[in-house]
Amino acid sequence: MSGQRNLTPLFQPGSIAVIGASSNPVSISGRPLKYLKQGFDGEIYPVNPRYESVQGLKCYPSIKDVPGEVDTALIGVGIQRLFPILEECADKGVKSCIILSSGFAEADQEGETYQKQLKEFADRTGIAVCGPNCIGVVNLPLKALASFSPVFEHAAYQTGKVALVSQSGALGHGMFTIAQEAGVGFNYIISSGNEVDLTAGDYLDFLVDDPDTDMILGYLEGWRDGKRFFDLAARAKEKKKPLVFLKVGKSQVGQKAALSHTAALTGSNATYGTVFRQMGVVEAGDLDELIDYAVGFLPKKYPKGGNLAIVTASGGAGILTADKAEEYGLNVPELEGETRRKLEEIIPSFGSAMNPVDITGQVLNDPAMFKKAMNTLLEDPDIHMLAVMLATSSGVLAEQLANDIADVATSTAKPVFAIWSSSFKFANPGPQTLQERGVPCYQSHGRACRVMGALYRYSEFLCSETPTGKEIGRAETAAALEILQQSSGNLGEYSAKKVLQHYGISVTREIIATARDEAVMVAEQIGYPVCMKIESPDILHKSEAKAIKLNINNNKEAALAFEEVLANARSYKPEAVINGVLVQEMVSGGQEVILGVNNDPQFGPVILFGLGGIFVEILQDVSRRVLPLSKAEAYRMIREIKAYPLLVGARGKEVLDVDALADALVKVGQLASDLEGEMAELDINPLLVLPDGQGVKVVDALMIRGNNT
Amino acid sequence: MSGQRNLTPLFQPGSIAVIGASSNPVSISGRPLKYLKQGFDGEIYPVNPRYESVQGLKCYPSIKDVPGEVDTALIGVGIQRLFPILEECADKGVKSCIILSSGFAEADQEGETYQKQLKEFADRTGIAVCGPNCIGVVNLPLKALASFSPVFEHAAYQTGKVALVSQSGALGHGMFTIAQEAGVGFNYIISSGNEVDLTAGDYLDFLVDDPDTDMILGYLEGWRDGKRFFDLAARAKEKKKPLVFLKVGKSQVGQKAALSHTAALTGSNATYGTVFRQMGVVEAGDLDELIDYAVGFLPKKYPKGGNLAIVTASGGAGILTADKAEEYGLNVPELEGETRRKLEEIIPSFGSAMNPVDITGQVLNDPAMFKKAMNTLLEDPDIHMLAVMLATSSGVLAEQLANDIADVATSTAKPVFAIWSSSFKFANPGPQTLQERGVPCYQSHGRACRVMGALYRYSEFLCSETPTGKEIGRAETAAALEILQQSSGNLGEYSAKKVLQHYGISVTREIIATARDEAVMVAEQIGYPVCMKIESPDILHKSEAKAIKLNINNNKEAALAFEEVLANARSYKPEAVINGVLVQEMVSGGQEVILGVNNDPQFGPVILFGLGGIFVEILQDVSRRVLPLSKAEAYRMIREIKAYPLLVGARGKEVLDVDALADALVKVGQLASDLEGEMAELDINPLLVLPDGQGVKVVDALMIRGNNT
Repeated sequence: MSGQRNLTPLFQPGSIAVIGASSNPVSISGRPLKYLKQGFDGEIYPVNPRYESVQGLKCYPSIKDVPGEVDTALIGVGIQRLFPILEECADKGVKSCIILSSGFAEADQEGETYQKQLKEFADRTGIAVCGPNCIGVVNLPLKALASFSPVFEHAAYQTGKVALVSQSGALGHGMFTIAQEAGVGFNYIISSGNEVDLTAGDYLDFLVDDPDTDMILGYLEGWRDGKRFFDLAARAKEKKKPLVFLKVGKSQVGQKAALSHTAALTGSNATYGTVFRQMGVVEAGDLDELIDYAVGFLPKKYPKGGNLAIVTASGGAGILTADKAEEYGLNVPELEGETRRKLEEIIPSFGSAMNPVDITGQVLNDPAMFKKAMNTLLEDPDIHMLAVMLATSSGVLAEQLANDIADVATSTAKPVFAIWSSSFKFANPGPQTLQERGVPCYQSHGRACRVMGALYRYSEFLCSETPTGKEIGRAETAAALEILQQSSGNLGEYSAKKVLQHYGISVTREIIATARDEAVMVAEQIGYPVCMKIESPDILHKSEAKAIKLNINNNKEAALAFEEVLANARSYKPEAVINGVLVQEMVSGGQEVILGVNNDPQFGPVILFGLGGIFVEILQDVSRRVLPLSKAEAYRMIREIKAYPLLVGARGKEVLDVDALADALVKVGQLASDLEGEMAELDINPLLVLPDGQGVKVVDALMIRGNNT
Repeated sequence: MSGQRNLTPLFQPGSIAVIGASSNPVSISGRPLKYLKQGFDGEIYPVNPRYESVQGLKCYPSIKDVPGEVDTALIGVGIQRLFPILEECADKGVKSCIILSSGFAEADQEGETYQKQLKEFADRTGIAVCGPNCIGVVNLPLKALASFSPVFEHAAYQTGKVALVSQSGALGHGMFTIAQEAGVGFNYIISSGNEVDLTAGDYLDFLVDDPDTDMILGYLEGWRDGKRFFDLAARAKEKKKPLVFLKVGKSQVGQKAALSHTAALTGSNATYGTVFRQMGVVEAGDLDELIDYAVGFLPKKYPKGGNLAIVTASGGAGILTADKAEEYGLNVPELEGETRRKLEEIIPSFGSAMNPVDITGQVLNDPAMFKKAMNTLLEDPDIHMLAVMLATSSGVLAEQLANDIADVATSTAKPVFAIWSSSFKFANPGPQTLQERGVPCYQSHGRACRVMGALYRYSEFLCSETPTGKEIGRAETAAALEILQQSSGNLGEYSAKKVLQHYGISVTREIIATARDEAVMVAEQIGYPVCMKIESPDILHKSEAKAIKLNINNNKEAALAFEEVLANARSYKPEAVINGVLVQEMVSGGQEVILGVNNDPQFGPVILFGLGGIFVEILQDVSRRVLPLSKAEAYRMIREIKAYPLLVGARGKEVLDVDALADALVKVGQLASDLEGEMAELDINPLLVLPDGQGVKVVDALMIRGNNT
């Protein structure tokens, strides 16, 4: 990443040099020239020592011979010739370079060397470098088509305020053609290539602040500067600029090996999903989903709630939409009072004024019914969104209905979606009219509902508080840090709990005993029943070592237990450093849960929550969050797991202290943030959530030192 | 349902009368005539007393005046005039009627009366009646367009061997236009309307046996004769004729109220999914999915395994496809040996001979690379399917690539799918060429992979054994039935277990005691520890009544427990009939599971399996099957739940007797089948699965009498 570069010359060039310009308009170095000539208003400078003129334009032997300033140099020459040319660009004062050439890290080891050389060049000269191995950067309104993408062979395209950043050139440009067909107009299309200098983060950074961009689509294979994303996403939220991303590579990212339980579940891939959800990214699962979201988010209308009204002339379409609405988290509320009464006046007796509102095939005789029913529903303050279905209407009727729908849709602040479930070719000019008038129109009920569901969640996200990390007292942080830094290796139960205590998290009463008699005395002091556990930084899995003894009820048992725990630990790992035996109160009741922290290499600390044992390991019923973690978000995190009812009195269980649990999560979040450079993993397993009002208690904990990033 | 009717005259009419024929070609009674005139080769008889001729055809005053035989009468008259006309049809000997008229049960109570009258007419005359409130039945190859659907306004359509049965006229015909655009050719389109006489089951029945039909698509809102579906689906399997269904109404079907735990989880909607999966139905979640499946299943190529090879010129497309393949249950195996070596010869060094196979942008210079790589992969016996990606190719190159791909695809028995991720308008003639040459071509990676996943599972289904209900000895069934029939109400634990024992399912040792001393004696006989439970047909929830006592260790405790259980039961429900106190061995170890049976109103007994308690009630981690249940299927049922690892030694647990569990499931299946008319519900909760080799044991059970259907 190169946050320091000036990207304006790349995004909004006044002049473009095409180095290695070819007179063959189908070649990689010939196409950009051909496309630029279609209408770019700035200066175009072909550079090639072999020609006097190329494709009818004066050609310069070297970039140094170009008369004016050069905002962007587009370079498609062979890798062998690249570096001398780059130096010439630097000499000339070129402001940005787009390198189309391949043969870098994607090819072989030699290419990796070239890649390092290129990085060195960018850092030394400060020139913003896009690529290599990319297909170019395009500013459509300026017709600055600095790309060899074949999609510009046909000059017609629709401009707009949507930008696309793609880590795959072919997929990005292919998607562009599909999106265009769906009526999405673009301003920028960036193919980021190998991201040797400028990264996806740099492009997004620019676009989030760009006043000409309303929405940013991203095709991402991996993030090179994850933590920077938090700030970027926060700015996008502030500007209500949706980020719609497709993240691929989910089947390929390797699993990080880790010492503690939770690590295996907090791999990088899981983190992307967590970050995206938490930061309001609309995550698409596929290219068509990405385009669907773009279409539905374009009108910039955000519903004030999740209540959907459905208007249909076909009962079947209404049922299918109701199914899908529920599937994607929307409500289809029953209609009442005034709204219902008014609808009953509009709709024939054999229709339905319930929701879905079925105006029946009678619409053929009275096409205005759609409009009337829609307006009635939109007047109802409890209706937040509206979907209207069409199927086999075509020709003049289709056009009339489309215009009626568009009239309604464009005069309300509530999102209105059309679902036209027939071939658009058959139904046109219906769907086309809707598209032209800015009404999202889908062929599929499910796809429309998926977008409406996302629109609702995005709208909720926009209204949510933006969490900020609350500072804990400096003294506490310092004390915690000291424990961490004094420890030579990982922190076992006793020390880890001391750190947690400094953050105000309750732990079990416990004392380390180093001799049998001391253990008995301490046990009496704590009060029976107690348990005993080996205290050793070298024995992380005490159960495996049989170095743990529960339910000790009296002095005699205590004495025996001390010897047994010690003996088992020694035979399990003779070389282990043993600090003593931890004598601990037995806490019962409540529900065991796990809190964990892992450092994601891209996004920093990730907090994990779940019930213990099989719930985490076998059912993988966990929730995750990145930092900072607000209390409201901690509550959401708790409610997110499927087993949540067990915490609040399901099956005759006691209602537990969920508030204290949320509190503990927030504190663990603060701790993870404060200690990020020092602590690689934290595993509180279990934390006991006691009955309501009685708080929580850490029963066991483990802290792995180091910074995994 | 009307299994007895002859449907051939309806599906393949030689003559069609249009009753109430209108000279207005846009009216509901005018359109069918217009469409039939476009090319129907049989006789067309307009009937209307008001005209001499209609739309240029001789018109008859009454159906009785029609000179020839009438296979189908299409009737769109008002409901008031309908019945006299129907009687005339019967007199004339008309073989089938399609009733377009509405105003029946969908409208009001009066309409319900008409509906009964229509049913009576069909039953009395034996005439096959389609509708009412439908939009017609269409035989495309015969151009017998007995429908008023506006989609036939444009006469061009593609015929083929796909049939569509739709319970929604508008959605069905809308979908038809989309499918046509995707290159799917149809023979029949049936809009079934209110299904007063002929039901979806009747149409499917005909189509399964129809030699001109290769695939059946269905849009279903509800099934009126579910049990018939089993036979129909078995025949479709035998003929390798895919059934591709979209079932809607999932958010609306009411939940059946029930006495036992499992009932709430075995509602009708869950059953549809169960039946579809078990009977090999390809279930679509939306209209576009339905069409996707039709496109992918058309070539009738079924993979011999789930290994997918991916060939791409864009790295990004390869990654996305690998993600999606995994998501939909396919493998993307690494390539080895000969295949890898050969690919390395074909592909440039900076490409990848791994899987996804990336032939890189070099394909522009050597378009034959696609063909070569594909052929190499298809020669590998470990590769079962192939997906090839294209993105921004267009024009002549696109056509050449499409033809190359089609050459390969049409010369292999393995399924080959193309994914062309750009606007088809942009990429044509590429995608169109593929479509015309019968190669499934999708724009979306995910949608293509979803279909390939379904193709693989369907292929596995075709190879699976078809289970048949094994008969248990008559004597055992008779004995079980006797217990059931002797009981006046529901069967409590003791009697229910007796029934289970007759089916060879082990239960706990137990004896009913009616006096304190007897209880003590019996407890000694069984051996301590024992438990005691009230035995009463009126107290189903023994825990709630506190009429259960565990861990009784000696005579004294036994005497006390007897009194306590009895007293608690009496105070809980003074009017309850009490048969005594059940004294039972305490079994420990193993894992508790639930086996349940519910009668689905449509599909008969449904077997449910899950771990007990929260696994079923909160996590809803259950699997379901309809009958008959083979042992192989019982094993699949057990493996299907998420908590399955707990049965086979996860987290240091013992490996349990899963074989005995599968056995018990099969036996419960037999019992459910034998006792279907007598038993509404069975709830074995818990069944204890003991360590491997030690079998299973029913600890508690409850049987609800009656037939819920």
